[in-house]
Amino acid sequence: MSGERLIYLPLGGAGEIGMNAYVYGYGRPGHERLIVVDLGVTFPDMDTSPGVDLIMADVAWLAERRDRIEAVFVTHAHEDHVGAVGLLWDRLRAPIHARRFTASIAARKLEENGAPTSGLHVVEPWPQTVEAGPFRVGFLPLSHSIPESAGLVIDSPAGRVLHTGDYKIDLTPVVGEPFDSALWEKASQGGVKALVCDSTNVFSLNPGRSEATLAPEIEGLFRDATGMVVATTFASNVARVKTLADAAVAAGRSVCLLGRAMRRMVETAQETGLLTDFPSTISPEEAADLPRQNVCLLVTGSQGERRAASAQLAQQTYLGLKLSEGDTFLFSSKIIPGNERGVIKVMNQLSEKGVTVIYEETGRYHVSGHANRPDLMAMHRIVQPQMLIPMHGEHRHLSEHVRLGAESGLTGIVATNGMMIDLTGDRPQVAEYIDAGRTYLDGSVFIGAMDGVIRDRIRMSLNGHVMVTLILDEKDEPLGDVWCEVMGLPETGRSKAPLVDVLEEDLSQFVGRAKRGTLRDEEGLDKELRRIARQTAQNEIGKKPEVTVVVSRLS
Amino acid sequence: MSGERLIYLPLGGAGEIGMNAYVYGYGRPGHERLIVVDLGVTFPDMDTSPGVDLIMADVAWLAERRDRIEAVFVTHAHEDHVGAVGLLWDRLRAPIHARRFTASIAARKLEENGAPTSGLHVVEPWPQTVEAGPFRVGFLPLSHSIPESAGLVIDSPAGRVLHTGDYKIDLTPVVGEPFDSALWEKASQGGVKALVCDSTNVFSLNPGRSEATLAPEIEGLFRDATGMVVATTFASNVARVKTLADAAVAAGRSVCLLGRAMRRMVETAQETGLLTDFPSTISPEEAADLPRQNVCLLVTGSQGERRAASAQLAQQTYLGLKLSEGDTFLFSSKIIPGNERGVIKVMNQLSEKGVTVIYEETGRYHVSGHANRPDLMAMHRIVQPQMLIPMHGEHRHLSEHVRLGAESGLTGIVATNGMMIDLTGDRPQVAEYIDAGRTYLDGSVFIGAMDGVIRDRIRMSLNGHVMVTLILDEKDEPLGDVWCEVMGLPETGRSKAPLVDVLEEDLSQFVGRAKRGTLRDEEGLDKELRRIARQTAQNEIGKKPEVTVVVSRLS
Repeated sequence: MSGERLIYLPLGGAGEIGMNAYVYGYGRPGHERLIVVDLGVTFPDMDTSPGVDLIMADVAWLAERRDRIEAVFVTHAHEDHVGAVGLLWDRLRAPIHARRFTASIAARKLEENGAPTSGLHVVEPWPQTVEAGPFRVGFLPLSHSIPESAGLVIDSPAGRVLHTGDYKIDLTPVVGEPFDSALWEKASQGGVKALVCDSTNVFSLNPGRSEATLAPEIEGLFRDATGMVVATTFASNVARVKTLADAAVAAGRSVCLLGRAMRRMVETAQETGLLTDFPSTISPEEAADLPRQNVCLLVTGSQGERRAASAQLAQQTYLGLKLSEGDTFLFSSKIIPGNERGVIKVMNQLSEKGVTVIYEETGRYHVSGHANRPDLMAMHRIVQPQMLIPMHGEHRHLSEHVRLGAESGLTGIVATNGMMIDLTGDRPQVAEYIDAGRTYLDGSVFIGAMDGVIRDRIRMSLNGHVMVTLILDEKDEPLGDVWCEVMGLPETGRSKAPLVDVLEEDLSQFVGRAKRGTLRDEEGLDKELRRIARQTAQNEIGKKPEVTVVVSRLS
Repeated sequence: MSGERLIYLPLGGAGEIGMNAYVYGYGRPGHERLIVVDLGVTFPDMDTSPGVDLIMADVAWLAERRDRIEAVFVTHAHEDHVGAVGLLWDRLRAPIHARRFTASIAARKLEENGAPTSGLHVVEPWPQTVEAGPFRVGFLPLSHSIPESAGLVIDSPAGRVLHTGDYKIDLTPVVGEPFDSALWEKASQGGVKALVCDSTNVFSLNPGRSEATLAPEIEGLFRDATGMVVATTFASNVARVKTLADAAVAAGRSVCLLGRAMRRMVETAQETGLLTDFPSTISPEEAADLPRQNVCLLVTGSQGERRAASAQLAQQTYLGLKLSEGDTFLFSSKIIPGNERGVIKVMNQLSEKGVTVIYEETGRYHVSGHANRPDLMAMHRIVQPQMLIPMHGEHRHLSEHVRLGAESGLTGIVATNGMMIDLTGDRPQVAEYIDAGRTYLDGSVFIGAMDGVIRDRIRMSLNGHVMVTLILDEKDEPLGDVWCEVMGLPETGRSKAPLVDVLEEDLSQFVGRAKRGTLRDEEGLDKELRRIARQTAQNEIGKKPEVTVVVSRLS
């Protein structure tokens, strides 16, 4: 066995929260057999990725080694863990293993992308395991904010790794399995080489609260409300959806689910047998006909997404339902950083309708799905690993998690995307740096984050765009004047004349005076026209736009 | 006097936090003499205003009535209250009144915009007053997070209005005047018609904490830190800058100010006599030469601004100073909603350098400058106005503030930008709706938010841009093929051929087959070329770009 090694390589999710993609390998350096844990997505924003549909880890390194990939394991069905299995299927083509609920969501992702589902396998919890080359992998149930979340027991010739996935310590999670310390202790017996552990809430100092603590608060709110109540949360948080639905029924209200994701998740959870006693629901038409105080809408759009049910209801009549004075809207969720503007917009639109908006940052109506600092420490104590590798966090989370581990004597390392870590020895060691990056799904095309496409979009949105066209005849003499079009720029500037006219005049003047040699030099002419257009714009409107020059040469 | 009325008209700051601009008027309807309170700015973002430099209220309504404006009063020197006095000077040309510190900041704004400072007047606190047509206005000192903040006592023939401006109730504000209940009680004697009141923190349930509570916490942190300490806050929060500087000195550290705004604010506060015992500071060069544990940098950029000192220090060596393992960086500030991404980016860059980042959302190292709910109630009790008009808040804040007032029997109204309220009678009544909007400073040009310029920029950033050029000869026959350029779009799509080639082929094919009549019809041809370009792009890359068509017709 000498010369073989066990490696860990995060490609996504380490140094950020989102688009999780972790690789483990075992074998001779450069010949390791590989397994992949999770293939998730993250979401674009106008600051860094305008127009992009979805973001995922760049898997070029994996795709080049496709013949060495034994399998993909998906810990749970959140988008940042399962969202890219369909999109990346074609590049990796490895069998996918997951628990039943996760597999049913993964199947839909594969189908949506025209990928076969024949390579998708449902796995029962550990001690059942899947053999994947030198690895033997089991799913260890955990509490989180979606059913059938699991950590992974990854056995290799170099020892056992416990990969937590996302988790919290919840003994009464409403839906799904309570956290089972005994099970995790059992999996830790005989020694764990590395604990690869969720870091999201390392800055949250208090112990996490159970999902079950919310029911009385929410029921009270629904009972005291006079008009219609609407509540929003992540659809995938099936336990919360159940808590909300039960509270509604207890408060004498019928439940109506709005938003495709909300209906789908409840259906999937019912089909997979995870949600057996969900109250019967009514249609939007039925909801519209009932007295307002007898209705509770459970809706998508807790992050202010523009096309989700929350935003629709905040703006207009939606599926025959209209909110008004006296209604109550509960955000049973927290705002993910970056989504504040969208959520606040929805809140204000609701406020304009006279709706009472409830959003308590203190967590009265929401609990997190991730382990807080004391719950991370509990996991460290249970597993007592040889080394701690924080994942699922920005750099500040990973680095704080290493510090936290060090307080109880654990050896840790901050491993961010692209850092290949050798776990074979006593301490984690950086083996290699891999080019890790992001791939964007843009319309139907995959583009690299660094391809320049998005950079150009951002530049146009900051600076506007001027198009300059000029026709030169067979003798390289101008045929007519220079023609300009602008987009995203003010009509007039300093001289009060139309910007387009001023641009055309300055450019035509230059062309009129230019020597034959200048006009013949394709590259030089383009450059000069661009320079003048930018300079003229700077004088007129105080900004230098992007410029596209088209010189048509008749021949 | 019958037939005359007292009106209140917010043009900015009511229905949003930022770009404050309030109008009061007294006289016969349509002939009221006017005063303006505050002329502030707000800041652009990539989601709604890419490329824009500053945002302010649209003052078209005021500019059309310039001859009726008696004066402008500026309550304090925050950008959202004073930031537009220079930019809008030319359109309003009214005398400006402010207290000394505010006036010195306003003077700089005027100078920067080439406006005269001769119309700027320094006013001493109430009971001194300024006569402005039918109004008599006094500045009533208040505690806030910048020196010499003031509310306004606005006397009119129809009664007294108290306009709070921004305030908190702080009896030990470190710099500036403590909140003086007796003074406000005195100003309220004889009855107050309307209290126009800050609403920012209406959702903060606990009483506000004093600036003075921070000193021991910050001093402790600075003392325990081993390396260099860096602290950031709003430069205009002179009290906080003083608290930080004093704590540094107490912890045996020399203070270095970084960032133009930071140095300027301290200078201005010293020049106006408001800051007399600020510790002496050292230059960046001196700071670099001292042992790290003897240095404290006070820096700009608490909101993650890209070019500010914080972001510079997080990325690189800045003015000879380089942060590293063992240093501590304190955010003595809160993140303004919308700025999360930028701040978090800076935090992670610092974390990558091994710097310990301290940001406590609980407020251990930061207190707000605005009145919390109990402090709003205290103001209601002191003033006991006939009516309550909440301002300085989004719709949800204003509406919650009206609800809060109603709990203690106050008559209120949610008045958002553009709603002219008649205060003359017993109850506030909507008199008229004015077109209120936003004006953007874009480079050196003012554009309207609804002009379409920004909409085009956003569209280009979401969809990319295709430029189509075609030359038609004197007989309307195509001279050469169609030529395309693209910006912000992927190079290749479904067919693997360059997108530009596919576009040119489809467009040339259409032009080749087109009848003479089609090619002659200028508008129709443009439209058809655009349609085909969008359809081809949709097939190839799954998105429909913006298209600019240039058909050159030789004649």
